[in-house]
Amino acid sequence: MAQNLSIVILGSGNVATQLALALKRRNCSILSIYSKTLANAQTLAAKVKAAATNSLTQLPQNADVYIVAVKDDAIEELLSKLVFVPGLIIHTSGSVSSSVFAKKFASYGVLYPLQTFTKTRSIDFKKVPILLEANSPKAFKLIKQLASLLSKNITVINSEQRKAVHIAAVFACNFTNHMFTVAEQLLQQQELPFSLLHPLIQETAAKAQKGSPQFLQTGPAIRNDKKVMNQHLSFLKNEKGFKKIYTLVSKSILDFTNRNEGK
Amino acid sequence: MAQNLSIVILGSGNVATQLALALKRRNCSILSIYSKTLANAQTLAAKVKAAATNSLTQLPQNADVYIVAVKDDAIEELLSKLVFVPGLIIHTSGSVSSSVFAKKFASYGVLYPLQTFTKTRSIDFKKVPILLEANSPKAFKLIKQLASLLSKNITVINSEQRKAVHIAAVFACNFTNHMFTVAEQLLQQQELPFSLLHPLIQETAAKAQKGSPQFLQTGPAIRNDKKVMNQHLSFLKNEKGFKKIYTLVSKSILDFTNRNEGK
Repeated sequence: MAQNLSIVILGSGNVATQLALALKRRNCSILSIYSKTLANAQTLAAKVKAAATNSLTQLPQNADVYIVAVKDDAIEELLSKLVFVPGLIIHTSGSVSSSVFAKKFASYGVLYPLQTFTKTRSIDFKKVPILLEANSPKAFKLIKQLASLLSKNITVINSEQRKAVHIAAVFACNFTNHMFTVAEQLLQQQELPFSLLHPLIQETAAKAQKGSPQFLQTGPAIRNDKKVMNQHLSFLKNEKGFKKIYTLVSKSILDFTNRNEGK
Repeated sequence: MAQNLSIVILGSGNVATQLALALKRRNCSILSIYSKTLANAQTLAAKVKAAATNSLTQLPQNADVYIVAVKDDAIEELLSKLVFVPGLIIHTSGSVSSSVFAKKFASYGVLYPLQTFTKTRSIDFKKVPILLEANSPKAFKLIKQLASLLSKNITVINSEQRKAVHIAAVFACNFTNHMFTVAEQLLQQQELPFSLLHPLIQETAAKAQKGSPQFLQTGPAIRNDKKVMNQHLSFLKNEKGFKKIYTLVSKSILDFTNRNEGK
């Protein structure tokens, strides 16, 4: 297979790791991995046969694409220290505007993979939705080429849409995981294993992929079953944080239903 | 195959339907389906070759097991109208105490299937955790026989544990589905399809089945990334209900982490 794009990756965390591995599998040449912590850069570099560096001034200048995959709140500082690169430069963040590149770079954009990444869990990138932004037709062509190596599920969006998607992902992933965490705590307090809830969690996720979740709601809140809800609140009396969530989310479920039925 | 237990089912909703179908497949004889609305009883009865009735006084007296699978808040009223039956009587509710049977019945208990049921989605009962309570060794033996026909995942619990499990299920299923609903709304407002989130939802659920969700949290809240959280809250300014959930759940994620790290 002919060699694909040449890439520099800035970052060595979850997203950087999964991207580097996936692009290497698609025959890209990973020229260099940068991390503030050299050992982290070296760990990832060894996996994808790249050079490793902790110096932003030692990065190769000849890569087709520079992928900034560091934490959202570290992007600006990193860019302020990075010298101009002639290639395309992109970040992978859901929350940072693409204009962060505008001062210093000519060809830039965003490649936002809508998935939750951990270093140790391999992701099938082909199924990951990839949301793209670019500052020019030329940049767009190259970002799309890169994204197509990773996934068949590509959507072009604007910055406003990406913000909404990022918040939606916080609800669907981070907040959902917190609901699981609360559930786990409640079971642990009764010396019951969290695995009791695995089939329910699997079915809840599967259902939401078959239909619209707003029409799939069940449980005491949507039935406005005050007796059961009061029992639950009384049970949670020593868990004030969990009790507040129970009250607010139950109310939101009912409000949402009433609002839609009132239309 | 020899005929298994003879069963009367009171109720024709999601749980009643899935139980009746599963028990029929396991060669039980479903004698009768009761529902307040005769047409509903008839619809389910036709599927499992049972009689249908809307009269509590016309139920057969000779069944091995009477399964009360009506809405939680309808159980007490139904039982007040039901005449004594010599067989085992159980309900399938997560929230109602088994003592609801104590006045009128000799042999009783609870068979709580920990899953979310819809009439139209067939459930593989073999994987559904079934939580049992019984008022006597004799009742326990029969409930366990019944549960074993449905599932290999059987746990004996007490009423206090069942309450905790029910609340945990509200968080893991109902509240999770509401997080999906909010996410769907945010995408719809930007004319983006909810299907963009399907892979993320699937991965979030899959992860929680491989490890402990409290150690899998990601996103701006656990990083205490105030900049991103404030951007999100500002974006949600016209969605006051969603904004409140965002604030409270983000705080809870951080509180939970601090509490555990402070140990």
